[in-house]
Amino acid sequence: MIRRLLIANRGEIALRVARTCREMGIEVVAVHSTADRDAAVLAFADDAVCIGPPAPKNSYLNIPNIVEAARLSGADAIHPGYGFLSEDPDFAEICAANGLIFVGPDPEVMSRIASKAVVRGLMSRAGLPLLPGTEDPVETVEDGERIAAEIGYPVIIKAAAGGGGRGMAIVPTKHDFRTTYHATRSAAHAVFKDSTVYLERFLTGARHVEIQVLCDRHGNGIHLGERDCSVQRRRQKLVEEAPSTRLDAALRAEMGAAAVRGALSVGYTGVGTMEFLVDGDGRFYFMELNARIQVEHPVTEMVTGVDLVAEQLRVAGGEPLSLSQSDVVISGAAIECRINAEDPGASFAPTPGVLERLELPGGPWTRVDAGYLAGSRVPPHYDSLLAKVVVWGPDRRSVLARMDRALTEIRVQGRGISTTAGFHRAVLSHPVFAAGEHTIHFVDEMLTEEKERSVTRSAPNGKRQRALNKTEGSRGS
Amino acid sequence: MIRRLLIANRGEIALRVARTCREMGIEVVAVHSTADRDAAVLAFADDAVCIGPPAPKNSYLNIPNIVEAARLSGADAIHPGYGFLSEDPDFAEICAANGLIFVGPDPEVMSRIASKAVVRGLMSRAGLPLLPGTEDPVETVEDGERIAAEIGYPVIIKAAAGGGGRGMAIVPTKHDFRTTYHATRSAAHAVFKDSTVYLERFLTGARHVEIQVLCDRHGNGIHLGERDCSVQRRRQKLVEEAPSTRLDAALRAEMGAAAVRGALSVGYTGVGTMEFLVDGDGRFYFMELNARIQVEHPVTEMVTGVDLVAEQLRVAGGEPLSLSQSDVVISGAAIECRINAEDPGASFAPTPGVLERLELPGGPWTRVDAGYLAGSRVPPHYDSLLAKVVVWGPDRRSVLARMDRALTEIRVQGRGISTTAGFHRAVLSHPVFAAGEHTIHFVDEMLTEEKERSVTRSAPNGKRQRALNKTEGSRGS
Repeated sequence: MIRRLLIANRGEIALRVARTCREMGIEVVAVHSTADRDAAVLAFADDAVCIGPPAPKNSYLNIPNIVEAARLSGADAIHPGYGFLSEDPDFAEICAANGLIFVGPDPEVMSRIASKAVVRGLMSRAGLPLLPGTEDPVETVEDGERIAAEIGYPVIIKAAAGGGGRGMAIVPTKHDFRTTYHATRSAAHAVFKDSTVYLERFLTGARHVEIQVLCDRHGNGIHLGERDCSVQRRRQKLVEEAPSTRLDAALRAEMGAAAVRGALSVGYTGVGTMEFLVDGDGRFYFMELNARIQVEHPVTEMVTGVDLVAEQLRVAGGEPLSLSQSDVVISGAAIECRINAEDPGASFAPTPGVLERLELPGGPWTRVDAGYLAGSRVPPHYDSLLAKVVVWGPDRRSVLARMDRALTEIRVQGRGISTTAGFHRAVLSHPVFAAGEHTIHFVDEMLTEEKERSVTRSAPNGKRQRALNKTEGSRGS
Repeated sequence: MIRRLLIANRGEIALRVARTCREMGIEVVAVHSTADRDAAVLAFADDAVCIGPPAPKNSYLNIPNIVEAARLSGADAIHPGYGFLSEDPDFAEICAANGLIFVGPDPEVMSRIASKAVVRGLMSRAGLPLLPGTEDPVETVEDGERIAAEIGYPVIIKAAAGGGGRGMAIVPTKHDFRTTYHATRSAAHAVFKDSTVYLERFLTGARHVEIQVLCDRHGNGIHLGERDCSVQRRRQKLVEEAPSTRLDAALRAEMGAAAVRGALSVGYTGVGTMEFLVDGDGRFYFMELNARIQVEHPVTEMVTGVDLVAEQLRVAGGEPLSLSQSDVVISGAAIECRINAEDPGASFAPTPGVLERLELPGGPWTRVDAGYLAGSRVPPHYDSLLAKVVVWGPDRRSVLARMDRALTEIRVQGRGISTTAGFHRAVLSHPVFAAGEHTIHFVDEMLTEEKERSVTRSAPNGKRQRALNKTEGSRGS
């Protein structure tokens, strides 16, 4: 078993992992860049090591420094969190070579699933449905035009090395294909140093539904139901919930079984997420496999009662799963809002700064995972996630009311700092979302509505627009 | 249904009730004394009224001021919380006379159950087992001595008007009876203006186990399982948990059915708690009925998923219960620690003051109900409850580990302020408590052990004693 774990990450996920370690009796080594000297996790770690200057490539992506920190601090394992090095096969291999347990799949499995195009092929062979598209990269614009015509427009061009909403472009009609194809390849080359792209049908009216899987090193695999992450802006998830209003028990069981089959077919171990699109007729299509704990994992924890980080650590330590599929019961509903330090009124631009005041929600069935304390600085170098607020309730209606209540409790003050709390309240109260009839285009449609409304009304000050920025509740500052 | 609710209380319970109101769309009127001007609840209320100076008799017990506040603010209902006016039949009647819904049982039911001696008689007639003792008050010391001899020593003398640990005294042998009898009556007269006392057998090795009941105005009554509140100091509860390690499913069903039968037999409505002692052989004895929401209600909420305040408000509004007995499923385990602003190293003396720093736990399955914000003043006029920390887990072992983790996250600073967080950690890690083999005398025994150990060790500074006072975790100040 793991005795002393280095957490190669920052922010809320570092503290999240540290909390489970404490509960399991595992010692914690926190690492931090010079920009994260007052991170909340440092207070709860047994040891802390500074691994470099703020820029990620010099600290949280700096493999030699992290491995050296593990050696210096006597850690026997490394948890990569999400982002940064979490899906880097080289890092997993270097950990192994240094006698460190990497909390994730085996390096050879990570290499096998590093390319999205390859994973699609593997999953198709395991019998998972894919959106009509190419399994092999599209090498020329002529090939692309021919294939797109076969698939049927609209199509989407995706960079093989992309993900999380980056490196993708929709082509509405054949007239746009050539330009978009070249632009996407150039961008992919510039960003990922890999211009490989593939093509698939772009589904209208789709929902993003992902299945949480959990596999051990003894051949056991289970799923813990789905998360619906259709509320996205620029393909970045903002709100996630379970269960999905799009799934019934039969579809859940079918997707769950498919997800487990797919994960086991590639030798996957640990926690992983199989992302699907689900259309209005309940047809589902495999999208990608995320080989790590995800930001939105608390949603699943709240409806299943299973500590996903604890399972991850047990599997990494070689233990079999502590539960079987029949032990998994989805109870009630849960929703998560990602509270970002961003200004919704300025195209969600990040608003770093010092959190002079930070009050987060509490009370019944309200979970907060934050990476900052009052007085902390939100550095400009990383993502803008301030805190995740997650609530549980017996049904979706009660959960939406509870989340709205929780959001009104958020008090954040600091020069220049805004949050997305007001934006989330607008999402929750929107009739389309409240009815569970939204698609992955909901946020774009909502923001367009807002814009049109504020243009139509020639009020001297766009009150509705201001509401999106509001982070204060009923109390004056 | 209730439209606008005045909360005639303060601290964490006022905020707790306000949260559910927000979720139900009920407007909130908060009241406060001049000492509670910066209470957390005020930020979440639709309206706030100052009802008088700090002394409870001038504010939170001041019926004319509270009823006037309701009239002025347009409230149609009053929630009394716990303590203060929550079990005062006169207050319930005055509310009714003023057209205000009182969130609690009917005034005539409250009158009927106001005397503990009378309630014991009613419950006995409903078939509930009582500890051997008197149903009628003991009028003379000679009667008392005769009855005590019949019951068998040790006996306990209880003031009819007492409760919550006040107005009680144990008599170990017949030689102590006369003195203790007179002392208890005098004290009861001085404190409660009522010197009525009764007698019962004092049970050794007992556990305090209470059943949460819920009854509507349509004749329906259910129970939501038990809470074990055996960890008490001077009969004040400090730690509460569910399920109790003393109960199995059969005993839970038996006690639950008895509790519901007892509550329905007196026409009880709303949430109520039937307190029992359970001996080592699983025999249970009715103690008292608490006609209000209790401090420890979140423990039940976490294992059942039922919002007790919501049910309370529904019943008060005339609705039938939203669930039946078969809907109640006890899932996993939960524990609550009452974090008090007290100094365990100075006989738990209250330590009021300004909370210059206040950081409370977060993360997975961790609920915090606090009545204060960072910067608030803890006034010296009321109870010393700072925050309730409640955690859930799949089993007791995981819950104890999780609570210990949560307690290490508490950071409280302010001149002169101590907390009981360190004391709670000592309770959780004590082998007797960890094994679930403690009784209602556990805290006394633990404190005696500590004392003896610090005397035995002639160390220059009592390190263990200091540990009880420690509120800071691994991080330096």
